[in-house]
Amino acid sequence: MARIVMKFGGTSVGDIDRIKNVARRVKAEVEAGNEVAVVVSAMSGETNKLVDFCRQIAPLHDAREYDAVVSTGEQVTIGLLALALQEAGVNARSWMGWQLPIRTDGAHSKARITTIETDTIIERMSQGQVAVVAGFQGLGPDNRVTTLGRGGSDTSAVALAAALKADICDIYTDVDGVYTTDPRIVSKARKLDKITYEEMLESASLGAKVLQVRSVEMAMKHNVRVQVRSSFSDAPGTLICDEDEIVEKELVSGIAYSRDEAKITLVKVADRPGVAASIFGPLTDANVNVDMIVQNVSHGGGATDLTFTVTKTDLERAVQVLTDAKETLGYQELVADSNVVKVSVIGVGMRSHAGVAQTMFQALSAKGINIQVISTSEIKVSVLIAEEYTELAIRALHTAYGMDAA
Amino acid sequence: MARIVMKFGGTSVGDIDRIKNVARRVKAEVEAGNEVAVVVSAMSGETNKLVDFCRQIAPLHDAREYDAVVSTGEQVTIGLLALALQEAGVNARSWMGWQLPIRTDGAHSKARITTIETDTIIERMSQGQVAVVAGFQGLGPDNRVTTLGRGGSDTSAVALAAALKADICDIYTDVDGVYTTDPRIVSKARKLDKITYEEMLESASLGAKVLQVRSVEMAMKHNVRVQVRSSFSDAPGTLICDEDEIVEKELVSGIAYSRDEAKITLVKVADRPGVAASIFGPLTDANVNVDMIVQNVSHGGGATDLTFTVTKTDLERAVQVLTDAKETLGYQELVADSNVVKVSVIGVGMRSHAGVAQTMFQALSAKGINIQVISTSEIKVSVLIAEEYTELAIRALHTAYGMDAA
Repeated sequence: MARIVMKFGGTSVGDIDRIKNVARRVKAEVEAGNEVAVVVSAMSGETNKLVDFCRQIAPLHDAREYDAVVSTGEQVTIGLLALALQEAGVNARSWMGWQLPIRTDGAHSKARITTIETDTIIERMSQGQVAVVAGFQGLGPDNRVTTLGRGGSDTSAVALAAALKADICDIYTDVDGVYTTDPRIVSKARKLDKITYEEMLESASLGAKVLQVRSVEMAMKHNVRVQVRSSFSDAPGTLICDEDEIVEKELVSGIAYSRDEAKITLVKVADRPGVAASIFGPLTDANVNVDMIVQNVSHGGGATDLTFTVTKTDLERAVQVLTDAKETLGYQELVADSNVVKVSVIGVGMRSHAGVAQTMFQALSAKGINIQVISTSEIKVSVLIAEEYTELAIRALHTAYGMDAA
Repeated sequence: MARIVMKFGGTSVGDIDRIKNVARRVKAEVEAGNEVAVVVSAMSGETNKLVDFCRQIAPLHDAREYDAVVSTGEQVTIGLLALALQEAGVNARSWMGWQLPIRTDGAHSKARITTIETDTIIERMSQGQVAVVAGFQGLGPDNRVTTLGRGGSDTSAVALAAALKADICDIYTDVDGVYTTDPRIVSKARKLDKITYEEMLESASLGAKVLQVRSVEMAMKHNVRVQVRSSFSDAPGTLICDEDEIVEKELVSGIAYSRDEAKITLVKVADRPGVAASIFGPLTDANVNVDMIVQNVSHGGGATDLTFTVTKTDLERAVQVLTDAKETLGYQELVADSNVVKVSVIGVGMRSHAGVAQTMFQALSAKGINIQVISTSEIKVSVLIAEEYTELAIRALHTAYGMDAA
């Protein structure tokens, strides 16, 4: 017997038949003798519809009213799933965020969970009742409904699993696990049996949209074992867990990429102390996040080139800010380029193994791909390359690290 | 300055433009210096969709989960209306049933309001904030969401007006008031300026679908002045109020009708004490409501004919129950007829004036319409006639009581 949290996303509860299908999966876990809590998202499309209603009325809306509106999608699905479970002969009841309650801070529309009161549902789960809990929502300090930001139901599920000290948190979705890379690009991509929290965090923040980043951070912090698996098959998925639980660590676990990058180069910036601060200060003030930063070797005459990346959506704003400050910053020219992609090799194994970056550089060089910017962390090497080489680079790296499926 | 409750039904908040229109009407009342609370229904069609979801999953559903699902429609509209008011420059916030709270009994899906806590919103209303309150929903003793039954938002509005001691409760709807009779039948039907609670109750229970019956009962009990008016025009509507507030009472205020009637006659029932009880007992047990009852003069031989009406939906069940009990009841024959209509003349004036019924009988007789059953109350005379005469009878009565518009 185990205590488990099952989470189903919008596609998995997209219509009445699928909700009945979810009920069957939950019933199977109950019949296997497990204590079960279920977290559900809104039916696919519903949240978008509600967000759109709010935007049509007020582009800059009161986040507290927005939360009241958009949280209704999950309220519908918990009620319907509880009914479907009862109809299947399973004891179940729905819980809205304010009923448990799931307490959050007061940052409406992007709230963070602070505590979840679980005494009541733990007692009921021990008596065989399934707790069907609304994802994405909570109760703020103002006694009003809060929401956690898009994809927040993943975080609800992991937070509930942490509060319940659950043995596992199964995230059911429309993919069957985490892959070594995007299977649409590399047909020989392999599903991973296990991946560490750190690797998943790097993958998630790089755009592998399987899980909300915050849910992985929370899983890591509370050591919640999370399994990503398909709601439409019984195949095991990918377990996201602590490094200690992975006996055979692979050197590299995956190749991630992000197209949401743009590069800015400031040509001939004065090469003196404090210049970086004077450039990035105004960007921070304008809410522009800067990612990779490279400062080239000095030109003659005390000048240097500075290159960095921002997200594509921030590019226009960043260029505006830097152009406005051209006099103060004293650079010669600004070059912006949004035809770039960031490709990253991720693996906890590289902490203890040299040569991972070298393999990457050689593989790209062999295909004639020029590296524009490089950045590294303990478990990741990222390069910025021209966007047209995206698929070629990913395939070359997948092969170079011996990750192709047999 | 007045304190007012404004209620808008599903058609009035049916899309984003209409919600903005509601915001304009509310803004006008605020700018006129009034303290305003608004009660809204779900966008038209939404509640039906949610009810249908529940039915698809479980025909006999847990009413607590049903309530969690169907109450979301109003939660959406309060948030959207609060946003629209803010966008129009009006201070506003939404309140769900559990937030005020609006407490109800535990009869899920048909709950009754017990108390409404208003201290907080009264304080905020006095500071110029509009309270946007979800209709149809409340908080049960089990700390779960309850709903009040279809049309319950009218009751929410009247109950809120009573709790707030509001000067008036304006019910905005898609008709512009209460008419002397159905304008689709009588083109000369007149809109009434005022009507008493008692008359409105008789009209409502007879099928004039302007207001939920329970809301009128509640208005009468707490002496809440209710005005029915159009959300699409500025014309004054019909005030539903105490008899004392109506100086010029009309003898007859309206002609109502109900097609949802069926007649059953038991031929040659034994004419002895207790026979009525032995007939209607089994019907009550089978949850069949009996309305008009007439016992004819005895035939010879200690037998009598008994005629009564039930709703059309109950007819089949009633016939079954009586057929099963034929031996016990000892009647000779059962005759059922669903081609009947009940036409009623309503008016508090008839309490003090004789001859109202006589005028009715003469008017019908002059058109050759046969009266099958008659029943009377203090302020109403009802007759059952063949359905094919419905329009003819209503027009004749409307003219006979001098109600035709000039």
